[in-house]
Amino acid sequence: MPSAAGRGQGPERDRRPESGEQPAADDYAKERYGVSSMIQSQEKPDRVLVRIKDLTEEKADEVVWVRGRIHTSRAKGKQCFLVLRQQQFNIQALVAVGQHASKQMVKFAANINKESIVDVEGVVRKAHQKIGGCTQQDVELHVQKIYVISLAEPRLPLQLDDAVRPEVEGEEVKTLHPQICFNISTSTSQAVFCLQSGICQLFRETLIRKGFVEIQTPKIISAASEGGANVFTVSYFKSSAYLAQSPQLYKQMCICADFEKVFCVGPVFRAEDSNTHRHLTEFVGLDIEMAFNYHYHEVVDEIADTMVQIFKGLQERFQTEIQTVNKQFPCEPFKFLEPTLRLEYREGVAMLREAGVEMGDEDDLSTPNEKLLGRLVKEKYDTDFYILDKYPLAVRPFYTMPDPVNPKNSNSYDMFMRGEEILSGAQRIHDPQLLTERAQHHGIDLEKIKAYIDSFRFGAPPHAGGGIGLERVTMLYLGLHNVRQTSMFPRDPKRLTP
Amino acid sequence: MPSAAGRGQGPERDRRPESGEQPAADDYAKERYGVSSMIQSQEKPDRVLVRIKDLTEEKADEVVWVRGRIHTSRAKGKQCFLVLRQQQFNIQALVAVGQHASKQMVKFAANINKESIVDVEGVVRKAHQKIGGCTQQDVELHVQKIYVISLAEPRLPLQLDDAVRPEVEGEEVKTLHPQICFNISTSTSQAVFCLQSGICQLFRETLIRKGFVEIQTPKIISAASEGGANVFTVSYFKSSAYLAQSPQLYKQMCICADFEKVFCVGPVFRAEDSNTHRHLTEFVGLDIEMAFNYHYHEVVDEIADTMVQIFKGLQERFQTEIQTVNKQFPCEPFKFLEPTLRLEYREGVAMLREAGVEMGDEDDLSTPNEKLLGRLVKEKYDTDFYILDKYPLAVRPFYTMPDPVNPKNSNSYDMFMRGEEILSGAQRIHDPQLLTERAQHHGIDLEKIKAYIDSFRFGAPPHAGGGIGLERVTMLYLGLHNVRQTSMFPRDPKRLTP
Repeated sequence: MPSAAGRGQGPERDRRPESGEQPAADDYAKERYGVSSMIQSQEKPDRVLVRIKDLTEEKADEVVWVRGRIHTSRAKGKQCFLVLRQQQFNIQALVAVGQHASKQMVKFAANINKESIVDVEGVVRKAHQKIGGCTQQDVELHVQKIYVISLAEPRLPLQLDDAVRPEVEGEEVKTLHPQICFNISTSTSQAVFCLQSGICQLFRETLIRKGFVEIQTPKIISAASEGGANVFTVSYFKSSAYLAQSPQLYKQMCICADFEKVFCVGPVFRAEDSNTHRHLTEFVGLDIEMAFNYHYHEVVDEIADTMVQIFKGLQERFQTEIQTVNKQFPCEPFKFLEPTLRLEYREGVAMLREAGVEMGDEDDLSTPNEKLLGRLVKEKYDTDFYILDKYPLAVRPFYTMPDPVNPKNSNSYDMFMRGEEILSGAQRIHDPQLLTERAQHHGIDLEKIKAYIDSFRFGAPPHAGGGIGLERVTMLYLGLHNVRQTSMFPRDPKRLTP
Repeated sequence: MPSAAGRGQGPERDRRPESGEQPAADDYAKERYGVSSMIQSQEKPDRVLVRIKDLTEEKADEVVWVRGRIHTSRAKGKQCFLVLRQQQFNIQALVAVGQHASKQMVKFAANINKESIVDVEGVVRKAHQKIGGCTQQDVELHVQKIYVISLAEPRLPLQLDDAVRPEVEGEEVKTLHPQICFNISTSTSQAVFCLQSGICQLFRETLIRKGFVEIQTPKIISAASEGGANVFTVSYFKSSAYLAQSPQLYKQMCICADFEKVFCVGPVFRAEDSNTHRHLTEFVGLDIEMAFNYHYHEVVDEIADTMVQIFKGLQERFQTEIQTVNKQFPCEPFKFLEPTLRLEYREGVAMLREAGVEMGDEDDLSTPNEKLLGRLVKEKYDTDFYILDKYPLAVRPFYTMPDPVNPKNSNSYDMFMRGEEILSGAQRIHDPQLLTERAQHHGIDLEKIKAYIDSFRFGAPPHAGGGIGLERVTMLYLGLHNVRQTSMFPRDPKRLTP
């Protein structure tokens, strides 16, 4: 057990809280509080630390040890009220002059800097009335011992309570604080990132159940595919290389090597100077590629079902997190259909025209039109998730398979959540001759994509796939407004730290 | 259904096999074979394709459709024997002149280039004797129709059968073929990478069950921690940045933000000019970080148990893959103890000295000594997996927590599989004052690691963690000899493609 006297077996140092007091010799409670020496794994005590979320009326009158942060503290005569926080949960703790605590001990407790981590021994007591502002409303902790485990500096860069006040309509999205630890410490952020972890888990769980194999694709590559725009350059020993803008080539090579169904989860790099609410220079791609038998809709159906399984899993397993986020960012629950709604591009264009938008058959969708179409689809079909199929060939990359019926269309699709694109995908051309023709049509230097085209020379199954942006899925599922809220350490043209 | 006449709805092109024949008008079987037009998702036929691995005696006398690659073909009078391959499985198929097949059809089948993908309709027949060289030994397929779906070029860069012949003792590890699709198409590679996918799955499954949260950490970073050696530089708009050598700082920030238990899976970049059997410039890191209560062994035990769960899961779920790899690379089954053997560094040094090695108490382990120690441990304790704990402080990074009893030691550990290091980890210093002292001792510029040290100023729980190299775990579990065999697209100082 860490010694309470501040002079453990670790290196000798001054561990006195700036405005706190170490116990004095004539204090009858002097063994019951203090600053522990740094935990350097000196001992293995058999003390059990109870989780704050488990402190309920069932534990009334038990003596427990708890580790938490000082969320708030308020001294009042011979008493000090602390709120102890542990992740999304908190409890009120009372230090009062009496048998266990001396006047000095109460003063010590009151002076511990906020955010410091403490070990507290206390008796769980039923509260006389509900304790507002705490997640554990029915009990409080009557403190018998309190030791500082890690002392926070007295001047915090921001107050956590300020960071989680509900969003006001029209107000600008709060900029991220440079001391990002605080940004990810709020109960909202804890919930956002637990849910994001859940999205990855559900994505992989579902695909592994469907017989997919996870692959690892390289991020440092020798040639920028698709012509080389928007790509970061890396110094590679005496030469140079690029950061992969997509794992697509590698997914396709695995398909050519008969892996049949593959997925990968990893960083994707885009050197676009875009400063919007939904662009990052580095984001996490959830990528799928799959050989099919006769029609790329076999793949579209698998991807759409994977998204549906994710939505269902989030509903079932992450209600607490969704509600925590909703407190700060109120939002309608995410709606989806089963099976997923699939519209053709021309149908989407028709709906937009009906709503007064002027656009040509082969024009791409602008961001405002995407959002408008999302609202129109929601009104008509009552879903926040749908597929737009058969994009004009002209607006898609050269490797997209042309539609066999109408050569102006293509076997390609986007998927949308709350009116914003989260996935782009297509049947890929698996025939080297057609691929060459299409690359030439796009004015791409064949020499630069020779390795790509050569991948298909030794028998390639027809295949399709797509890439999903993780941060966008998290943002749109939760109805947040900026992708920086769903990236722990966002990267954009102006932001490289921490 | 794709038309057999080679003139589907797709772009008009010559799809004739180089040495094959399209059906002639006077051929009674002319509808039963040919080169299909490119599958462009023209139709959604309700044809069911049966998996080759499911073709067993139970299916005898059924008519089935199968898609596979021409693995080998051998014409013999009025018959042609094909071996059709699908992933790790294959079956013999017979095209013989008769009611269904004409002389021309047999000739067509015999002339299809190897590795081409074909759709075959055939009757499953019991074989009169076991068919050697095929995984489906008890049945063969009597072909009634055969259509080429994707034609391979006639000159293959290597023969798959050559690539999987058993390793000969002392022979140099085969260099990877530049046409890597073939390198990852072999049954051995299929098995290696399926098992690797399983390692990732078991790693995450186990940690999520233990209450860990998956995090995503940035790969483009503004400052090279640990002083800046061996780091790749990236052009970042008008400035420059680095590729992360480890997610450690970010894992630790999550611990400071009370995530308590986190893990991540992602690429790690090391600009080391090392050309060894176990170094890559880009590899996949399985990283863990965890707050503990009083002793870092709480974390060591969790990590070791995670490895044990992986080993057990591989044994249970991947026997087929292990056996497939063993055919080419024979190897003793991987042995481990439960709980995992943990030796102190000084015990390891004593064992080495007893075996004649001369080394000082604070010397680091050389690679040959690591391997020797692995053999000694295996002899004495009969395990291929163990932990070496309490490394000398002098050989570990500045952020390693010193041992509280012997200041020349540290709270750090490595884990070994078959005598090679797969994980390096430690209790980290969570106190900014001690961290500053240790950085100064190592001569590190404090200005460059200010953000790192500042992360611990607002209360930091004691924590420990470690990073595992995925490719090494796969290599050592399977007893392979080069980490390039367990990376689909390996990167080293001399290799950036494909």
